[in-house]
Amino acid sequence: MFQTMRCADFVVKEPMVIGHECAGIIEEVGSEVKTLVPGDRVALEPGISCWRCNLCKEGRYNLCPEMKFFATPPVHGSLANQVNENATFLTIVVHPADLCFKLPENVSLEEGAMCEPLSVGVHACRRANIGPETNVLIMGAGPIGLVTLLAARAFGAPRIVIVDVDNYRLSVAKDLGADEIVKVSINLQDVAEEVAQIHKAMGRVDVSFDCAGFNKTMSTALSATHAGGKVCLVGMGHLEMTVPLTPAAAREVDMIGIFRYKNTWPLCLEFIRSGKIDVKPLITHRFGFSQKEVEEAFETSARGGTAIKVMFNL
Amino acid sequence: MFQTMRCADFVVKEPMVIGHECAGIIEEVGSEVKTLVPGDRVALEPGISCWRCNLCKEGRYNLCPEMKFFATPPVHGSLANQVNENATFLTIVVHPADLCFKLPENVSLEEGAMCEPLSVGVHACRRANIGPETNVLIMGAGPIGLVTLLAARAFGAPRIVIVDVDNYRLSVAKDLGADEIVKVSINLQDVAEEVAQIHKAMGRVDVSFDCAGFNKTMSTALSATHAGGKVCLVGMGHLEMTVPLTPAAAREVDMIGIFRYKNTWPLCLEFIRSGKIDVKPLITHRFGFSQKEVEEAFETSARGGTAIKVMFNL
Amino acid sequence: MFQTMRCADFVVKEPMVIGHECAGIIEEVGSEVKTLVPGDRVALEPGISCWRCNLCKEGRYNLCPEMKFFATPPVHGSLANQVNENATFLTIVVHPADLCFKLPENVSLEEGAMCEPLSVGVHACRRANIGPETNVLIMGAGPIGLVTLLAARAFGAPRIVIVDVDNYRLSVAKDLGADEIVKVSINLQDVAEEVAQIHKAMGRVDVSFDCAGFNKTMSTALSATHAGGKVCLVGMGHLEMTVPLTPAAAREVDMIGIFRYKNTWPLCLEFIRSGKIDVKPLITHRFGFSQKEVEEAFETSARGGTAIKVMFNL
Amino acid sequence: MFQTMRCADFVVKEPMVIGHECAGIIEEVGSEVKTLVPGDRVALEPGISCWRCNLCKEGRYNLCPEMKFFATPPVHGSLANQVNENATFLTIVVHPADLCFKLPENVSLEEGAMCEPLSVGVHACRRANIGPETNVLIMGAGPIGLVTLLAARAFGAPRIVIVDVDNYRLSVAKDLGADEIVKVSINLQDVAEEVAQIHKAMGRVDVSFDCAGFNKTMSTALSATHAGGKVCLVGMGHLEMTVPLTPAAAREVDMIGIFRYKNTWPLCLEFIRSGKIDVKPLITHRFGFSQKEVEEAFETSARGGTAIKVMFNL
Repeated sequence: MFQTMRCADFVVKEPMVIGHECAGIIEEVGSEVKTLVPGDRVALEPGISCWRCNLCKEGRYNLCPEMKFFATPPVHGSLANQVNENATFLTIVVHPADLCFKLPENVSLEEGAMCEPLSVGVHACRRANIGPETNVLIMGAGPIGLVTLLAARAFGAPRIVIVDVDNYRLSVAKDLGADEIVKVSINLQDVAEEVAQIHKAMGRVDVSFDCAGFNKTMSTALSATHAGGKVCLVGMGHLEMTVPLTPAAAREVDMIGIFRYKNTWPLCLEFIRSGKIDVKPLITHRFGFSQKEVEEAFETSARGGTAIKVMFNL
Repeated sequence: MFQTMRCADFVVKEPMVIGHECAGIIEEVGSEVKTLVPGDRVALEPGISCWRCNLCKEGRYNLCPEMKFFATPPVHGSLANQVNENATFLTIVVHPADLCFKLPENVSLEEGAMCEPLSVGVHACRRANIGPETNVLIMGAGPIGLVTLLAARAFGAPRIVIVDVDNYRLSVAKDLGADEIVKVSINLQDVAEEVAQIHKAMGRVDVSFDCAGFNKTMSTALSATHAGGKVCLVGMGHLEMTVPLTPAAAREVDMIGIFRYKNTWPLCLEFIRSGKIDVKPLITHRFGFSQKEVEEAFETSARGGTAIKVMFNL
Repeated sequence: MFQTMRCADFVVKEPMVIGHECAGIIEEVGSEVKTLVPGDRVALEPGISCWRCNLCKEGRYNLCPEMKFFATPPVHGSLANQVNENATFLTIVVHPADLCFKLPENVSLEEGAMCEPLSVGVHACRRANIGPETNVLIMGAGPIGLVTLLAARAFGAPRIVIVDVDNYRLSVAKDLGADEIVKVSINLQDVAEEVAQIHKAMGRVDVSFDCAGFNKTMSTALSATHAGGKVCLVGMGHLEMTVPLTPAAAREVDMIGIFRYKNTWPLCLEFIRSGKIDVKPLITHRFGFSQKEVEEAFETSARGGTAIKVMFNL
Repeated sequence: MFQTMRCADFVVKEPMVIGHECAGIIEEVGSEVKTLVPGDRVALEPGISCWRCNLCKEGRYNLCPEMKFFATPPVHGSLANQVNENATFLTIVVHPADLCFKLPENVSLEEGAMCEPLSVGVHACRRANIGPETNVLIMGAGPIGLVTLLAARAFGAPRIVIVDVDNYRLSVAKDLGADEIVKVSINLQDVAEEVAQIHKAMGRVDVSFDCAGFNKTMSTALSATHAGGKVCLVGMGHLEMTVPLTPAAAREVDMIGIFRYKNTWPLCLEFIRSGKIDVKPLITHRFGFSQKEVEEAFETSARGGTAIKVMFNL
């Protein structure tokens, strides 16, 4: 949105506050709220679903067509959806109590905000049924690939191999616990070669996560996955894809899609509290809310390089 | 194979007997066989798996890498895998007793042979979890589309719409119980138009079966299916596919593959015995085993037209 | 409640309107309601859950600890939870729009009210995964046994045997579509004998529903069910049970519990609309709302005999 | 069997070699065996199923009615099912290659033999779907309770509480990684008190394993488990049980049974190889094969006390 004023099918048509990864301190609670008091530190799940449609009632509220989601046009995001009149930068968010999750004592606000990206990895692992019997392949070591790596580890995946074109990203993945890293070259290698590299590094792949979402990454994921396995499409590089779908289907390799997440905050907080997941290494840059710092923050994030997650702090 | 000497990855390199849809009469049984006696009428499941690999042990024996399957090179098929020395056309098949399923009294040999194609539809419906809550879309009204229609009906699908380019095929589908038929034109319509036609005819689609397997049919199937639904790829028109995979994945529409079938004969026979499924209308032509008739049979089948299933009888 | 002022753990302490199986006509709608207009004929799902707890969010809202349910103390039931001041017997119920399901044209108000008991059978069949591959045993041919029979048939169960001590009930079950009926004698037969009778009548039992819930019925259900099958406990005769649980567990026969239902109204209405289920034979008696008729209605119901469902009509 | 010549329904009628937890060294292989060579160290899965019945074909081979299982009458066990003629105590077992699992280099023969009891815990965790979102209660800290503890930990259970009457056993459980231990008194406490103790120690229980199998332990397990949870019956103390089944069923707490295990050796070996599970502390006593030592071994095991697993070594 920062660069194109759109994200997937969502187009920004009027000025809109962005931001959907956040944590904060409770200032005030409604009269019926019993679970929170002012001063509580909380992480926010950013989507409000209708609870009246079939999908909500069936427990798939992330697919609710009436969802109101931070920074998905025309809904304002969390970098301030209600500005306090006496202060320029003090952002106030009004949000349902059941979407505000109290932070355990040993979890910081920054770690609380990281529940949002981590939730993507957690939801992907749940849908793909990751456990101690699923060897995992991850295509792409960007932020989404890295949270998927952390989540897959926490769900008990015995072996995880991660593939990228960038040495720096792969070294971060290695530090975060990948068993094997595989460097590939987009232009110089074909899918068969990549698959051979992956199998050499790890043996059988039961579940692949494509965290990039391009023809090439998806083709490698589909081809590398063992008969009866699953490929979960997480990244969204290409919308239309040209991939060897039929040979994968004929090995009963199923393709699983994900959209955001549901019911993930309690689990994310438990993973962070217990130390099973450490999200701190993903926070590479920190900024305040001055005009200058805000601009610098977005430029840092857009530049990529060593930036994984860029955090604002009050 | 009749035309190109190959089928998918399997290439015929030496003279090979074909045929894998068959039923017959027990002539002789091994000393340890307790379930069958000479004279029993049986339908044959055509694949012998190893029962030693992980996939076999996990109940997914159809994916066994050591599978020996009728008419999959280099294994001979059922049109005669052991020719009796005293007769030219009397075909004898040696097959494990647990893959020979006794026909109920009211099921003919011809119907028994139809368990094989019907098994494809049954396996697809099982994997896609068809029941009284899944509205079904079927792309393609060829033989595979029709058996999938019959199976989906028997699994309780409340509404079934079937799509094809051919009026004759659609009329057969209607006769076999499709609730709605939709005629499309490959070249003159785009995917969005087809989807609109389908939704107009039936409303929400929960599960789609692509029984053709081309870019266009798969694109329509992926786009027409409701959030949280499934698309099952049954047909194998294109190997590499160019399809809108990402938008489907972002609605958590999963793509399910199938390979042949497993454990389907008892269910198929029960469907036929009880009258829940009538396979007889699918048998459009019958031939004997004379040289002339055999040639005519293959030409009839290759010509298409009104031929659905072409049957040989001794 | 009519006789003991309690039902399971729920005790009536103050005067309370009863009734939770109902249908009616929309009189007025709130300003945000878009799905209904006055005059619409609707069936009512009687429980309002919180949509904030984990169980609601996971799609198991029937287990919500904050559930407000018609006629579950202290919540008033549907025989009048808000009495119109100008009329003695005109009952008005205020209820969320998403729990009011519009009746198809060919479904009567009486049939709409029957969605409630039918929902119990539908929820049981869903949890037990009934389909064309599950032979079903039903213990008890009372109202709950009969709706379970209707639901199991609609889910495609190939063979259903029903067991009771009462010949009249069994004849009703036979008329409603049971394949086999088995008359047992509570006192004169042991479990092994009953199991032998059931196996003789039907062969293998894949799923058993105990719609009575007594030691004897549950023991028979557990013992009659095939290795790897399921027993679903629907009836609630005894709270503490003395049953051969261990031998059943050692055959991996799982015991499934159910509590009310969830998301069942649309499916029930579709079953009734399409004719897959006919609930009319279950309505054996009808009464109006005069004092005399109301008393007579409850006495008829309490007497049992030929009464299955006793219906009030305005 | 040592004391009563029977185990569950299996009665020893003729002299029979016992033993079913074993590992050894390959001496000779059949001509078609490609996966093993003499000298390989292997752990043995003790049951040979038929691979022809429905249960085998559906992947539930542990329920095969034709199963031939070490030391289940009349099949001899692994303490010698074929004695070498030149040696008194050298035991030789002839076993299918696909049931002999090669030990990783860092896994000892003793650890290999421990795959058998560990498999019970692994199978129970698989059937109960243990993962990072299931708080676990284990009733009973005997050998089966302890392997279930180790397995639940390896499957990612976030919190595990274990209950027993014996302080020594509880201290072993604590050393093996239980988060909480609860000492109960069989006679002096009622179920409600035990449940209160458990909830105080751990909060919500999602899955309970009853590794004792008595009325009291099962009653506590059923009562302590949260709505929508599961109770898995592993121990087999009582055959007929008197338990509050109905209130549990009305909270949709399902009761899952297990029989032995299937496909567990590769996972057990991976757990041991990777260090996720350490089975060595469970081996408390070791004996050789002299007459005197054999007698002493069985007496040690029967005496209980500090004995968990008693191991024979050649």
